[in-house]
Amino acid sequence: MALSLTMEKLKLNPESNIKNVIAVMSGKGGVGKSSVSGMLATSLKQKGFEVGILDADITGPSIPKMFGLRQSLISDGGKILPPKTETGIKVVSINLILENEDDPVIWRAPILNNTITQFWQDIAWGDLDYLVIDMPPGTGDVSITVLGMLPVTGILMVSSPQELAQMVVRKALKMGEKMGISILGLVENMSYAICPNCNEKHEIFGPSKGKELAEMFEIEFFGSLPLDPKLSELTDLGKIESYALPKDLDLANLVDTAVKNLA
Amino acid sequence: MALSLTMEKLKLNPESNIKNVIAVMSGKGGVGKSSVSGMLATSLKQKGFEVGILDADITGPSIPKMFGLRQSLISDGGKILPPKTETGIKVVSINLILENEDDPVIWRAPILNNTITQFWQDIAWGDLDYLVIDMPPGTGDVSITVLGMLPVTGILMVSSPQELAQMVVRKALKMGEKMGISILGLVENMSYAICPNCNEKHEIFGPSKGKELAEMFEIEFFGSLPLDPKLSELTDLGKIESYALPKDLDLANLVDTAVKNLA
Repeated sequence: MALSLTMEKLKLNPESNIKNVIAVMSGKGGVGKSSVSGMLATSLKQKGFEVGILDADITGPSIPKMFGLRQSLISDGGKILPPKTETGIKVVSINLILENEDDPVIWRAPILNNTITQFWQDIAWGDLDYLVIDMPPGTGDVSITVLGMLPVTGILMVSSPQELAQMVVRKALKMGEKMGISILGLVENMSYAICPNCNEKHEIFGPSKGKELAEMFEIEFFGSLPLDPKLSELTDLGKIESYALPKDLDLANLVDTAVKNLA
Repeated sequence: MALSLTMEKLKLNPESNIKNVIAVMSGKGGVGKSSVSGMLATSLKQKGFEVGILDADITGPSIPKMFGLRQSLISDGGKILPPKTETGIKVVSINLILENEDDPVIWRAPILNNTITQFWQDIAWGDLDYLVIDMPPGTGDVSITVLGMLPVTGILMVSSPQELAQMVVRKALKMGEKMGISILGLVENMSYAICPNCNEKHEIFGPSKGKELAEMFEIEFFGSLPLDPKLSELTDLGKIESYALPKDLDLANLVDTAVKNLA
């Protein structure tokens, strides 16, 4: 409990210039944090920004598979370069280093933390407008390292309508507050499902609570995402960049505006 | 990476006698590991076993809420007793100690690990036939502590049909193997949803892959659970003990038989 909430922020290498760092966080696993990270990065890239993703979920990394990335990190004259997705997003993830994508990473926290700081310090990221960090679930050791040691501009919080998820998301929101990181806004995922047969919307995880939760914490509610079999299919195929966000949820614009409002 | 996979197992206190320890694990968060833990414990208790749950998901604890437990741990003449659920399951969770259920636990790994070992060593569990451990997501520090330092009888693995979840579950299966813990069997959760309108079954996370995954690892496939709005509702209300498992999935019997087959 002797946790110092103010840590010295790590510096980047001369090969990297990152303007904004967005941590995508949910507290709870499985609410679709990784797919929201992927959609945010895709959406920012489509707007013309230079974008990278740092996959901080070291023991459950999902990003490379979603983007169909199989290439390893690239070593070039002493520099380590991140591979690029189809639309040009730079990605760093432990699963780009492991021999088999399903090899487990059975590491104690100091080694997990070292991996995060190496991803930040030792990768030649180049010029990025946005680095999206896919956070691990929970408010534990690796989350503390990311929020404490990297210069995070703001948090994009992801919730789902289940009461249980709400409780855990509230923990993450309080963690952000305690660590002095701004919450840019909240996206509710899995808000409803559309029956492929009768086409009706069903709130299978219970009634939407995103707006209410955002009001409670006085943060912006960005909108809702459905539980969409099309998204599962595309992420499984490594084609998340082909997924079209609902028209009323322009993630890139919402996040970019929130970041500009911070300044 | 200098990980010793053989650790000395921790001894229990004289107030506790626990016959079997079942770790419910998924690797990935949000596949319903906690609700499967709750259903397994409920099902074992209904069969007449003495049952406890140790909630090892310290930063995202769900168990107390699912069972509607608000009582704190009970201190009785130097002993710490776990509160009991409606049907008499003993529960220990960090959320029974926190002042507010949504207070975040922003702790580095050694403190998280200490909490786990204290839950094991300092609680007067009494006589239990089964202690069900709700594992955190991932194969990181706390998972290493539970599988390495507690005498786990076997792992009940929980997957979901998404390809991504499969990959992460394979990591957890390999972790179990590497640490020499038997896998009792696999349950696939969220295999399908039943439309409340047209009553049709829909595989919203893609086609079921549980059986295939179980065959790949030569473990037993216990069966599938639907994505059931009724379950979300009951867990949100703290009434998971009222949920009826599908008739073809007698979790208590499957696990108890698998444990007997180990001996």
